[in-house]
Amino acid sequence: MLERIRIVLIGTSHPGNIGATARAMHNMGLADLALVAPRCEPISADSVSRASGADHLVHGARRVDTLEQAVADCTLAVGASARSRTLPWPMLSPRELGERLPQELADPGARVALVFGREDSGLTNAELQRCHAHVHIPTNPDFSSLNLAAAVQVLAYECRQAWLAGEPAEPVAPDQALATHADLERYFAHLERTLVAIGFHDPATPRQLMARLRRFTLRARPERMELNILRGILTDTEKLAPPRDE
Amino acid sequence: MLERIRIVLIGTSHPGNIGATARAMHNMGLADLALVAPRCEPISADSVSRASGADHLVHGARRVDTLEQAVADCTLAVGASARSRTLPWPMLSPRELGERLPQELADPGARVALVFGREDSGLTNAELQRCHAHVHIPTNPDFSSLNLAAAVQVLAYECRQAWLAGEPAEPVAPDQALATHADLERYFAHLERTLVAIGFHDPATPRQLMARLRRFTLRARPERMELNILRGILTDTEKLAPPRDE
Repeated sequence: MLERIRIVLIGTSHPGNIGATARAMHNMGLADLALVAPRCEPISADSVSRASGADHLVHGARRVDTLEQAVADCTLAVGASARSRTLPWPMLSPRELGERLPQELADPGARVALVFGREDSGLTNAELQRCHAHVHIPTNPDFSSLNLAAAVQVLAYECRQAWLAGEPAEPVAPDQALATHADLERYFAHLERTLVAIGFHDPATPRQLMARLRRFTLRARPERMELNILRGILTDTEKLAPPRDE
Repeated sequence: MLERIRIVLIGTSHPGNIGATARAMHNMGLADLALVAPRCEPISADSVSRASGADHLVHGARRVDTLEQAVADCTLAVGASARSRTLPWPMLSPRELGERLPQELADPGARVALVFGREDSGLTNAELQRCHAHVHIPTNPDFSSLNLAAAVQVLAYECRQAWLAGEPAEPVAPDQALATHADLERYFAHLERTLVAIGFHDPATPRQLMARLRRFTLRARPERMELNILRGILTDTEKLAPPRDE
């Protein structure tokens, strides 16, 4: 699915942002980059440095003159946009965009473009009106302009999240097996015996001590190996306790 | 809620990343930045340029020498981490982290730290073991190392999402106040001293004992009163320990 998501950058001014976009894409498993009329030379020391090993995406990027050419084969184009525009358009949150992707890309011939505008002025109204929908990353209203690569990072992250949500989850490791109820009760009995032996606890005036220790311990959901350690500590502590008065 | 989320950067090498982190934070409404032993001068032309108007966060950042100092007053510390570590720790996805925040921050005295490591080597095991949980941003396994500011961007975005979604959670009762990081570190120091005194623990052959006990205890999210009980048990246990060989 991820290989059919294209990142389209229009009129980018800073090669560092193109390199950082490539890195963000590759980190999230995206590989298809298109540059529309960049206002800089995309391949530079700065873009290679910021790509940090993902510069093959910059070298392999298709370079075109118009948005039309960049998205001609796409079945859905979504433009990254600030919120308010003169003509309201269907607006998605990044999460809603991610949630739509599996359905949008279910057809193996389908392709999605995520379109990002210039660092200083974003997308023009004409460009926004060529998109099926707009996506707005919620920001601090007093400081709303995200760095270009940071905006790509957030949307690429949501793409990957949506893709992972369809993957089977990983099983837990066998050495992390949880203690059983019986293990826990043996531990609590051992703990109480030890606390009495060292003179910390008097069952005649319990003041909810064991209840508090139970609540604390159960909240942690102890593993078997952890209970073994705790019981080892109790055993060594008991050995130090003074003999009982009989 | 967002004002009580602190971003902690440890050992950062590139001032540009500090500036870009400040921008990402301010974009998402976060304002509390702490720099632990930066390996560069945080205020430079590069950091101011990348901050793009958010450089007041860099100027106002607290600078400290240790992680301890940066998170002492925090009730939850979460470390950004690659997935596999020798000792598995409670692991959150960025979204799970966001979903937990409203409850974690319901008490007006609560504070959350999100801790990020060095550009080249991340967080050390000792640093990771000072965190209650780890957060892993899902990435392409073939290219998993995110830019530092990009990682901050993703987590800050999830913080803002959680805040936007948030119904105010119910505050916790005052007698259930969570222990702070500093309380916990005092407890762990006391625990280790006691385990050495009773002969259970040999720091020369630690076999991850303290790491396992940290993980267990942090998972339970101890309340202050519970730590007081545990420290009382340690104090009584220490009194029984044989005098040290000098």
